[in-house]
Amino acid sequence: MISTYDPEELHEECGVFGVYDLDGADVAPSVYYGLSALQHRGQESCGIAVSDTNGPKGVVKSVRDMGLVNEVFSKDRLDSLKGNIGVGHVRYSTAGASVRENTQPLVINYIKGTLGLAHNGNLVNAPELRQELAMTGAIFQTTIDTEVIAYLVARERLNAPSVEGAVKNAMAKLKGAYSLVIMSPRKLIGARDPWGFRPLCIGRRDNTFFFASESCALDAVEAKFIRDVEPGEIVTINREGQIFSDRSMAIKKPAHCIFEYIYFARPDSRIDQVSVYNSRIMAGKILAEQHPVKADLVTGVPDSGNVAAMGFALGSGIPYGMAFVKNSYVGRTFIKPKQSARESGVRIKLNVLEDAVKGKRVVMVDDSIVRGTTSARIVKMLKDAGATEVHVRISAPPFLYPCYFGTDVPSSDQLIAHNHSIEEICRLIGADSLGFLDGSRLAELMDGNTNYCDACFSGNYPVPPPEGDIRGEC
Amino acid sequence: MISTYDPEELHEECGVFGVYDLDGADVAPSVYYGLSALQHRGQESCGIAVSDTNGPKGVVKSVRDMGLVNEVFSKDRLDSLKGNIGVGHVRYSTAGASVRENTQPLVINYIKGTLGLAHNGNLVNAPELRQELAMTGAIFQTTIDTEVIAYLVARERLNAPSVEGAVKNAMAKLKGAYSLVIMSPRKLIGARDPWGFRPLCIGRRDNTFFFASESCALDAVEAKFIRDVEPGEIVTINREGQIFSDRSMAIKKPAHCIFEYIYFARPDSRIDQVSVYNSRIMAGKILAEQHPVKADLVTGVPDSGNVAAMGFALGSGIPYGMAFVKNSYVGRTFIKPKQSARESGVRIKLNVLEDAVKGKRVVMVDDSIVRGTTSARIVKMLKDAGATEVHVRISAPPFLYPCYFGTDVPSSDQLIAHNHSIEEICRLIGADSLGFLDGSRLAELMDGNTNYCDACFSGNYPVPPPEGDIRGEC
Amino acid sequence: MISTYDPEELHEECGVFGVYDLDGADVAPSVYYGLSALQHRGQESCGIAVSDTNGPKGVVKSVRDMGLVNEVFSKDRLDSLKGNIGVGHVRYSTAGASVRENTQPLVINYIKGTLGLAHNGNLVNAPELRQELAMTGAIFQTTIDTEVIAYLVARERLNAPSVEGAVKNAMAKLKGAYSLVIMSPRKLIGARDPWGFRPLCIGRRDNTFFFASESCALDAVEAKFIRDVEPGEIVTINREGQIFSDRSMAIKKPAHCIFEYIYFARPDSRIDQVSVYNSRIMAGKILAEQHPVKADLVTGVPDSGNVAAMGFALGSGIPYGMAFVKNSYVGRTFIKPKQSARESGVRIKLNVLEDAVKGKRVVMVDDSIVRGTTSARIVKMLKDAGATEVHVRISAPPFLYPCYFGTDVPSSDQLIAHNHSIEEICRLIGADSLGFLDGSRLAELMDGNTNYCDACFSGNYPVPPPEGDIRGEC
Amino acid sequence: MISTYDPEELHEECGVFGVYDLDGADVAPSVYYGLSALQHRGQESCGIAVSDTNGPKGVVKSVRDMGLVNEVFSKDRLDSLKGNIGVGHVRYSTAGASVRENTQPLVINYIKGTLGLAHNGNLVNAPELRQELAMTGAIFQTTIDTEVIAYLVARERLNAPSVEGAVKNAMAKLKGAYSLVIMSPRKLIGARDPWGFRPLCIGRRDNTFFFASESCALDAVEAKFIRDVEPGEIVTINREGQIFSDRSMAIKKPAHCIFEYIYFARPDSRIDQVSVYNSRIMAGKILAEQHPVKADLVTGVPDSGNVAAMGFALGSGIPYGMAFVKNSYVGRTFIKPKQSARESGVRIKLNVLEDAVKGKRVVMVDDSIVRGTTSARIVKMLKDAGATEVHVRISAPPFLYPCYFGTDVPSSDQLIAHNHSIEEICRLIGADSLGFLDGSRLAELMDGNTNYCDACFSGNYPVPPPEGDIRGEC
Repeated sequence: MISTYDPEELHEECGVFGVYDLDGADVAPSVYYGLSALQHRGQESCGIAVSDTNGPKGVVKSVRDMGLVNEVFSKDRLDSLKGNIGVGHVRYSTAGASVRENTQPLVINYIKGTLGLAHNGNLVNAPELRQELAMTGAIFQTTIDTEVIAYLVARERLNAPSVEGAVKNAMAKLKGAYSLVIMSPRKLIGARDPWGFRPLCIGRRDNTFFFASESCALDAVEAKFIRDVEPGEIVTINREGQIFSDRSMAIKKPAHCIFEYIYFARPDSRIDQVSVYNSRIMAGKILAEQHPVKADLVTGVPDSGNVAAMGFALGSGIPYGMAFVKNSYVGRTFIKPKQSARESGVRIKLNVLEDAVKGKRVVMVDDSIVRGTTSARIVKMLKDAGATEVHVRISAPPFLYPCYFGTDVPSSDQLIAHNHSIEEICRLIGADSLGFLDGSRLAELMDGNTNYCDACFSGNYPVPPPEGDIRGEC
Repeated sequence: MISTYDPEELHEECGVFGVYDLDGADVAPSVYYGLSALQHRGQESCGIAVSDTNGPKGVVKSVRDMGLVNEVFSKDRLDSLKGNIGVGHVRYSTAGASVRENTQPLVINYIKGTLGLAHNGNLVNAPELRQELAMTGAIFQTTIDTEVIAYLVARERLNAPSVEGAVKNAMAKLKGAYSLVIMSPRKLIGARDPWGFRPLCIGRRDNTFFFASESCALDAVEAKFIRDVEPGEIVTINREGQIFSDRSMAIKKPAHCIFEYIYFARPDSRIDQVSVYNSRIMAGKILAEQHPVKADLVTGVPDSGNVAAMGFALGSGIPYGMAFVKNSYVGRTFIKPKQSARESGVRIKLNVLEDAVKGKRVVMVDDSIVRGTTSARIVKMLKDAGATEVHVRISAPPFLYPCYFGTDVPSSDQLIAHNHSIEEICRLIGADSLGFLDGSRLAELMDGNTNYCDACFSGNYPVPPPEGDIRGEC
Repeated sequence: MISTYDPEELHEECGVFGVYDLDGADVAPSVYYGLSALQHRGQESCGIAVSDTNGPKGVVKSVRDMGLVNEVFSKDRLDSLKGNIGVGHVRYSTAGASVRENTQPLVINYIKGTLGLAHNGNLVNAPELRQELAMTGAIFQTTIDTEVIAYLVARERLNAPSVEGAVKNAMAKLKGAYSLVIMSPRKLIGARDPWGFRPLCIGRRDNTFFFASESCALDAVEAKFIRDVEPGEIVTINREGQIFSDRSMAIKKPAHCIFEYIYFARPDSRIDQVSVYNSRIMAGKILAEQHPVKADLVTGVPDSGNVAAMGFALGSGIPYGMAFVKNSYVGRTFIKPKQSARESGVRIKLNVLEDAVKGKRVVMVDDSIVRGTTSARIVKMLKDAGATEVHVRISAPPFLYPCYFGTDVPSSDQLIAHNHSIEEICRLIGADSLGFLDGSRLAELMDGNTNYCDACFSGNYPVPPPEGDIRGEC
Repeated sequence: MISTYDPEELHEECGVFGVYDLDGADVAPSVYYGLSALQHRGQESCGIAVSDTNGPKGVVKSVRDMGLVNEVFSKDRLDSLKGNIGVGHVRYSTAGASVRENTQPLVINYIKGTLGLAHNGNLVNAPELRQELAMTGAIFQTTIDTEVIAYLVARERLNAPSVEGAVKNAMAKLKGAYSLVIMSPRKLIGARDPWGFRPLCIGRRDNTFFFASESCALDAVEAKFIRDVEPGEIVTINREGQIFSDRSMAIKKPAHCIFEYIYFARPDSRIDQVSVYNSRIMAGKILAEQHPVKADLVTGVPDSGNVAAMGFALGSGIPYGMAFVKNSYVGRTFIKPKQSARESGVRIKLNVLEDAVKGKRVVMVDDSIVRGTTSARIVKMLKDAGATEVHVRISAPPFLYPCYFGTDVPSSDQLIAHNHSIEEICRLIGADSLGFLDGSRLAELMDGNTNYCDACFSGNYPVPPPEGDIRGEC
């Protein structure tokens, strides 16, 4: 038996959420809702930590475990989390470190009481920092970068006048991607690396303040989106409701992950002032312009290809239509019992709408091709159902390089585009034509903003990648 | 805390599946896949029963429990189910009888060995039959109709020459809806009530035969659709691979549930020779013809409204587009912690794509309005996001009467259309206009076939409803 | 890995409990306590069924599952069981039928509403009764005798004026061992087979009445022991608190299971007017008289051999002492990971007190020898610890015949005493001498009462055993 | 509902176990057996960590969770723990810190790879050490002393030539009680504080070496007891099977916890060359000599009072006998549903053997009186059962002072002996006489060895207690 973990699918490596209710009400339900809305960013484990800013200092209650938000948090567990300040985390990790020890938020005791930390992103210098800390006697109980960050904050706090000051000094040593939400006994802090790789935004509902990886999580708690935390910015909310911003770590040229727009983020989110929905519509339109084709139907590979497919339809004038049914009950824990060779389990997750595609020339829009096997499978499904032609359009350039900033784009040798020309790929997946979005047009996905990271396509890493291809973990 | 059970949503009350591998291989994995594909028909409990037609007679192994298919069936549990003939069941029930005793398949010992029964539908004369049986000393351990059917089959078997003969004699006493898959020590039987209310079809893969509520489940096991079991037909497969059909219970005018096409079934299924997908496209087209409106965007309420919305788009020429994001991680067991009045949990399950609807006149297509509260909520969401007009189109006539044949359309007093005019409903849900599919056009959803049941809309019950509004249970 | 199920140990096959609170308070907590005190009679599964005699007729709530009482009944599950009348059951079964379907109490609907039945014992004519019932169309969902009994009661109720009358008429057809507690919508009934094989007693606390397999369960709920239900007696308690007794099924010569005194029952119970404690002390004294030996220490194999060992000490004048430590944390579900041959897991469950036995001649008292392997192991343990002599004394005659009345004494060919002389057994277990209680003295264990069943020792079955060695199941 | 946690009972705060199989076989099964035998030392949580000394350095697999050993370790979980070196832990904690974060063994990464640590005991200077570490930037993820120890070892390792050298240097800073088993990538280390408060011994089976809190755990794995780790000694076993001993931290006057002999340890253990069984027999004899009484029966409160009761019987000539039945199925997780005042749940756990005590003058021997309520309850039970006199004898002096070295003897104000004279206690518990063991005789329990700690009785703390009555946690 094998799980349905699909190596073809790319995985984000975390979502973070934070709340501070200045009126003193319990925030665990809000974190629960917020994490549910961020579940697409990590389905492996999750956790919530809360404390009461009006109670004794440093008492943090937390629950962390493997599983989806609604698997981990029963009514009893949520009820046990009393407190008006809280942070939460959803996580995806590489298989090797999928253990309970690595779940977040990380809760630590240090010289000034307690901290709860939730982190999204990967550091490129985590090994060096660990080594450096170990050289002075540090011990590590996890393999996540968050623990390194916590250590640095704790050490810097010895000489910094405030926890936010310590965060700033720690940031001076961190290289790579991190969006952080940190809860001290009396403050809630949101911080983002100077490149702004991973998203983080601020929301508000009456006297309650929020940090969230994506704005869709603010919608889930009926909070109003205020603004993004800026690259390199540290935003601190204190008990009096004052908000302080420190932008001294900002750099000139941020590098937002372009793939958040293309694939990771939910289309109802707005990141760094750009609507993810609009971004995908635009990607589809560009594709239609760059790779036109005569066809009867444009369809998206659910769920991530749907919006770009609509963009393609808008751009090309070819009607958009559903061609697939996705089984939403088949989740991460679905087992695939091995049976006859005939019973592959392929059509459990995704089935084709024969009557929608029979006798038609189909444009199939997807967000990426990693190894190519999934695309080949789906193209075949369409043809078996009677599609006369299948034209594949990918709303991103080909993956050529690994990512060190928080996603699991694999090593080059596993990337089909690294080893094959586009023509070869087209043939391997059985398509009648294949077109990728041209890398030169990526800025259009961000309304013309050129401060993005496209290293997985271009190899232009905004921060030098770590030696030995060792990636951090969040 | 309350669960996310949504009284606005209609619930099917079961799906059935059966397999017979004449070559002797284990069938539990196939049943598992088949039930996964039928999960939309019942998410409350499920079960699999298998036996070995070449082993000692009457040894049945079964696992039944509350939960989704992939929650109930671990690798170990599936591995324990050895046998080459099997039946499976997924179930939704009214809250009152949501107990483990009522899970299916029902496995019984009787004079001729064992039977495993899986049943979809509701009898209208279950109470009378129970009373009759009790008068001769019968005892009941469940409250499901399946137990009544099992009793009748067992009693008829005393005088019938075969199990399929006993099924036939039992059917003579059953009134109402039932699609049955029955496994005896050496035979697999599929049977359908004379009205053909609920679907049931036959599939084959090499030497393996299948019965399934919907053809999408055959796709899941890579089997080929052979044909529907006909209304009133009993199909028997024996150990030699012979297939016998008994149509002597057939009647002149079957009455297929029209709501299977409109809502219950998966669009990739084909029922009684009609594609569900085509049926919904047609519903949308008729709506566009009957209730035209000037608008900028047609959208469907996910997931059930999407295909009809595309039909509306095709019929009207207004472009189709997604307007919502559905959170597929929010399942049946999701808890809604009570928090402030502000945090309603409404936007956890469904959020609106602001950039898709802002400034637009939107046609929102849905399959039904039950109590009206959900529709009102979604209309408001669209308007809050900037839609200038919201025109609601329902791809079915208004619900006016309860269903006694296997769905949970509630009693009349809870149906908004029973107590309000269409104008009133339009006002109550905050729409700018509202149009229902006209009942006179329903045959078009079935390619002109008029053998359908539309009792929930028309009150024309093909079988007289039970006294006292007592419904059966599957 | 193997479980710690020890084939050497004999297993009782059930305990029953019933409560009726005439003041209307919930009884589930009492049943929970009562079953906990009866847990030694069955550790495989358990269940509680309750109903409210002042509520609507026939509404029974029940929870039944595999596991110990405190594993199955969480706070939530107990809280859900509202009602002032209830029955409970603990069960041990042979491995083959250790499935949830067979858990008790059995709850049925029949012509007069509902019944909850809890049963201890084995029928010898269950197969015939099943066959007879099946011939009239009965269906069976379990393999337990309780279902047969329920059927008979339901059928007899058609012609009997009351449920207790139906129980009486059903009893006329039952052959074998049964102690029953039955709950109808308004009555609680305790009944015992005419031979009185298995115990059942009546207790009272204010306006609350109890039935229990053993009096120790009455102590657990602070109830006063009233009297035993007599062999063949049916005791009915109605809503007015009236108690009716029907002794018309009584026979002249009951046959109480003598092994309840020797092993099964708790020493703090009193059964059929005889203290189990006194009975075991007497067994030890008789042993000391029949099989005297010179020794320094008398010890019992925990826990069942301890009281008889004390009796031996009293009878012989040799001092009693503990020689073993039993690990009470090693329960039914303890796994035995296979490791080196050296690591047998033997001393996990039982270890010897070296300093108590070193250099001593030890008399080791146990209740039985089934296959002999356990005895051999323990004798070796004592010798390894330095005991100079080990004299084994068994407080029962040798097992020679299987039991068909509710215990799992195995078939003759598996009984060491069936195939070996006492001298041979002594040698096989490595003892210096071996003495069994003489069967002629068994009446002394019951204060001179000769109405006991010793069929497992003598082969004198009070009821003819079933053909084909097929045992019933409770 | 309340749990059965009984504040009257004293709780040990941990047991440790370690194995090194030089032949390379997996040791997790051995640790599992060993921990099962030590379960009496901690029933709240447990854990096992293993690594492979022939595999890549620093890969540790561990499973830690709340629950008993056989609840936490399923077959699958044990199978996942591959490695030939391992440490294990069972834990009891005060309620406040009963969280998963605090389970052991603690597994850390540090400058030299990984360490797995299992610890029994309480430090008195943990707060100071934590403060000191925090002042240099340390972060803490648990509240257990083990983390402090791990930190010190890691820091000392920076300057020490070996891990055992680092342990030694760390020990120079630790004050209080600790028995440690530490696993480095290639070595297994057992160490004991200079006072030797908590036990730790060495065992061997062929090429496999063991450390265990008590020798009974060596019996469980069929290992031979070699010797105790001496107070202040560090024993290191390397990959070549060499054993190194460092006794340089030893002090002149160790202080073994005398209460290990009286209550905590299993009677089949031998600690610091004294048999626990003999020690308790001796305690009973001294009691008989110091507090003689005319009586008919000596009995022990199970299970801890039994051996001392036998000693009393030997000393006094009064016959020993069982007077109670203990329900071994009522464990730590047993809930006590609140019912009527009458149903206290008292007799669920312990019932009296009426026939053993009726009409008799009873000497009841127990190991301690903490708050007095349990004793009062049991005395009443005996009298209710017909005992004419009840003379209570306690095999220890009265508790007057709290313990800071690894047990939960509560604060003085909760100790009945702190606030009442012996006469008053006798009256409060309803006894006819009451006698405690005289503190002056304690050395006799250790064969004349005077190197014991009796601070809970005498207030003579071998190490000054911490300020503010703050106890450490293991």
